[in-house]
Amino acid sequence: MDDPFVIVGGDAAGMSAASKAKRADPELDVIVFERGEWVSYAACGMPYYVKGTVEDLEDLVAVTPEEFREDRDVDLRTGHEVIAIDREEKTVTVEADGEQFEQPYGSVLIGTGARAVEPPFDGLELEGVYTLRSMDEADAIESFVTDREPERAAIVGGGYVGIEMAEALTERGVDVSIFEMLPRTLQPFGEQTAEIVEDHLRDQGVDLHLETAVQGFGGDGRVETVELEAETVAADLVVVGVGVTPNVDLAEKAGIELGPTGAIATDEYGRTNDEDVYAAGDCAEATNVVTGEPDHVPLALTANRAGRAIGSTVTGDPTPTGGTAGTAIVKAFELGAARTGVIDEDRALEAGFDPVSVTVQVPTRPHYYPGATDLTVTLVADRDSKRVLGASLVGRDGAKRIDTVATAVDTGLTVGELESLDLAYAPPFSPVWDPVLTAAKVLSGTIEG
Amino acid sequence: MDDPFVIVGGDAAGMSAASKAKRADPELDVIVFERGEWVSYAACGMPYYVKGTVEDLEDLVAVTPEEFREDRDVDLRTGHEVIAIDREEKTVTVEADGEQFEQPYGSVLIGTGARAVEPPFDGLELEGVYTLRSMDEADAIESFVTDREPERAAIVGGGYVGIEMAEALTERGVDVSIFEMLPRTLQPFGEQTAEIVEDHLRDQGVDLHLETAVQGFGGDGRVETVELEAETVAADLVVVGVGVTPNVDLAEKAGIELGPTGAIATDEYGRTNDEDVYAAGDCAEATNVVTGEPDHVPLALTANRAGRAIGSTVTGDPTPTGGTAGTAIVKAFELGAARTGVIDEDRALEAGFDPVSVTVQVPTRPHYYPGATDLTVTLVADRDSKRVLGASLVGRDGAKRIDTVATAVDTGLTVGELESLDLAYAPPFSPVWDPVLTAAKVLSGTIEG
Repeated sequence: MDDPFVIVGGDAAGMSAASKAKRADPELDVIVFERGEWVSYAACGMPYYVKGTVEDLEDLVAVTPEEFREDRDVDLRTGHEVIAIDREEKTVTVEADGEQFEQPYGSVLIGTGARAVEPPFDGLELEGVYTLRSMDEADAIESFVTDREPERAAIVGGGYVGIEMAEALTERGVDVSIFEMLPRTLQPFGEQTAEIVEDHLRDQGVDLHLETAVQGFGGDGRVETVELEAETVAADLVVVGVGVTPNVDLAEKAGIELGPTGAIATDEYGRTNDEDVYAAGDCAEATNVVTGEPDHVPLALTANRAGRAIGSTVTGDPTPTGGTAGTAIVKAFELGAARTGVIDEDRALEAGFDPVSVTVQVPTRPHYYPGATDLTVTLVADRDSKRVLGASLVGRDGAKRIDTVATAVDTGLTVGELESLDLAYAPPFSPVWDPVLTAAKVLSGTIEG
Repeated sequence: MDDPFVIVGGDAAGMSAASKAKRADPELDVIVFERGEWVSYAACGMPYYVKGTVEDLEDLVAVTPEEFREDRDVDLRTGHEVIAIDREEKTVTVEADGEQFEQPYGSVLIGTGARAVEPPFDGLELEGVYTLRSMDEADAIESFVTDREPERAAIVGGGYVGIEMAEALTERGVDVSIFEMLPRTLQPFGEQTAEIVEDHLRDQGVDLHLETAVQGFGGDGRVETVELEAETVAADLVVVGVGVTPNVDLAEKAGIELGPTGAIATDEYGRTNDEDVYAAGDCAEATNVVTGEPDHVPLALTANRAGRAIGSTVTGDPTPTGGTAGTAIVKAFELGAARTGVIDEDRALEAGFDPVSVTVQVPTRPHYYPGATDLTVTLVADRDSKRVLGASLVGRDGAKRIDTVATAVDTGLTVGELESLDLAYAPPFSPVWDPVLTAAKVLSGTIEG
């Protein structure tokens, strides 16, 4: 009998790997150690629990521990923390209920995820100050809003989480301020999209402070203020969402190599520098399909896909984990914003491209069909090869059109090839030239001068 | 001075070519002869005029004749019919106001469009019997509904037009029956999609008669009945929408070759067998991107794109007209149905493929996010090469996701490559695995069996 497939961490990557491995080889022992109590939960749904859109926190769980154990025959052990990997002995050291034991493995998957970055703010320990990285914190914020009825929330960070939480808390009747250190929100989406989102946030009553560094929080036991450089503003609820950092301590201690992004380096099959040790999800790198370089994109699909691929690989069917285009979409009140590929000029230059971009505003339906709204499309290509590098979209409707560009980016299409795609048209759904095609047309013209 | 670029027909292909040619070479004389009075109109919008969604018929005009003449400097002549092309002399014979004249050309574009097929039904001449192929007919149907308040409409043909008109007339308070000769509606969308649309049509009160041949219409001056083989049913309004046939008489008379589909054969630049004679739009063939064979897909984007490309080509910048994937989308009451590529089994076999298909039903959002509805995705691939051949989608939401598959089909992706695309996920927009990815996953599994 083979030594078991041991998985460290029971969320997207880990549980996808466990399920796939068990399905592919029911004889293989698959053991998942999860230090917390929640497994296989949709972290991306947490803001919607705070908002009240999702009624029960349990609704965010895709598959329950019982289902994993009983239906999928996965040996899932919650409350179990892996504290060391001994690659010589091929064992992991597990701590549970204050006891430790060794578990032998045939192969092991590190799926330890990422944690919220906690800047060195004073007052992080005050009551009413949260990050949003775990189900327990989502629960705590929701309870806090319900029980304490805060009046003024300060959100530190204008990324996805910040913007989703701004929407959630506004919906709950809380006045929201966002404090972002950089000159704009939604950094990976580019300036054109961010500006439209920012105007919309202001229209929705969010008090947006850009280029504003937070120093800390004040209060007596419970948070009362946010300390800025020049002033102090009142806040009785704080959510810090300034990004995540991969959990790599366990891997590092075991001599597993990290990549240039600081996440765990992997090959195309998700293998680390030890061929029996895999890594996937928010703790690991993935290959960027545009640059061909290692990238750290802690998003759900990448984690699910890589986990699933590794589940196949360890059971004898080597399956690449797939690249990432960094495709993302976020709802900001009434707007949808999406991005894919490389859109940042500096990053494109660094990767050896000569980026050219256009931004066009195109209605999502013909002028005569009611309900048309503008979609603003920023499309970026390499001047020389004309290859599509990336795009960002924003509008009330149609942000999912990013998938067309994601497909083009992933397959290395040129702007001309993107422009000549046969996309679907009928008045209730699109103008004759889909906004993506229009952007490609305009960008073609710009490149050809 | 060059002889003018003469365009026969002032709709999508013709006016796109005229505008592009004038923009590329303002010195070139561009003359458009249009036998009717309407130019550059959105035929696809006509059902929505009858429905009442679009208020003025003029709203369907993208660019007015005055704008073409004054802003774009196109010599547009409505009410002018080209009745012959003399390829030796390089002239066209034009008839207007009962007079004829010869117009020399340097190059000529045949953009004569298509016309509604009129089966040999008795009673086609009765008042209240319409096709829907011209703006004047859209106007006439709308007026008829408003003035005569018909109670029972019979729609002959269950294609796009039939279904869009069923929705339009139901909205106007008319009881609608559809008579379709074949065992199903929406033939090019495949059985799985058609069945869902059919159930929905019935739910919406449409009386659907499949495998039902119409023999003709009865009535005394005005239509009163539809004559079937076995029975006669009452109808005081009839719309015949059984397909279109390309207008190729002018081309044939001039010795221009037709292709296997019966439409005008063209090369990749839209050239016919005469290098100075181009053809584009609903009268011409386009190359199917899946089969590589000539195809006749009389849809708006193909026409616009080909016209525009020919406008570039005739002004010295040879531009391929682009292929067609036969991508189409249609609204059927609350549903959207879409298709792309080759999905018909016989057609795939004929083209040398060994088609395998799966149909999956996937919610368009995570289970916990409200408003999720099912999207039914039928995905077809070649067993041997695993190349994606086509897809059909249907659901209340998300049919525009066909564009992802259209892109995959156009670029020749395999099912595995489609499955590993990095598509956008966030709970308000999609489940982690977009329905298209799920279909690809399932189809991969089926092929690998």
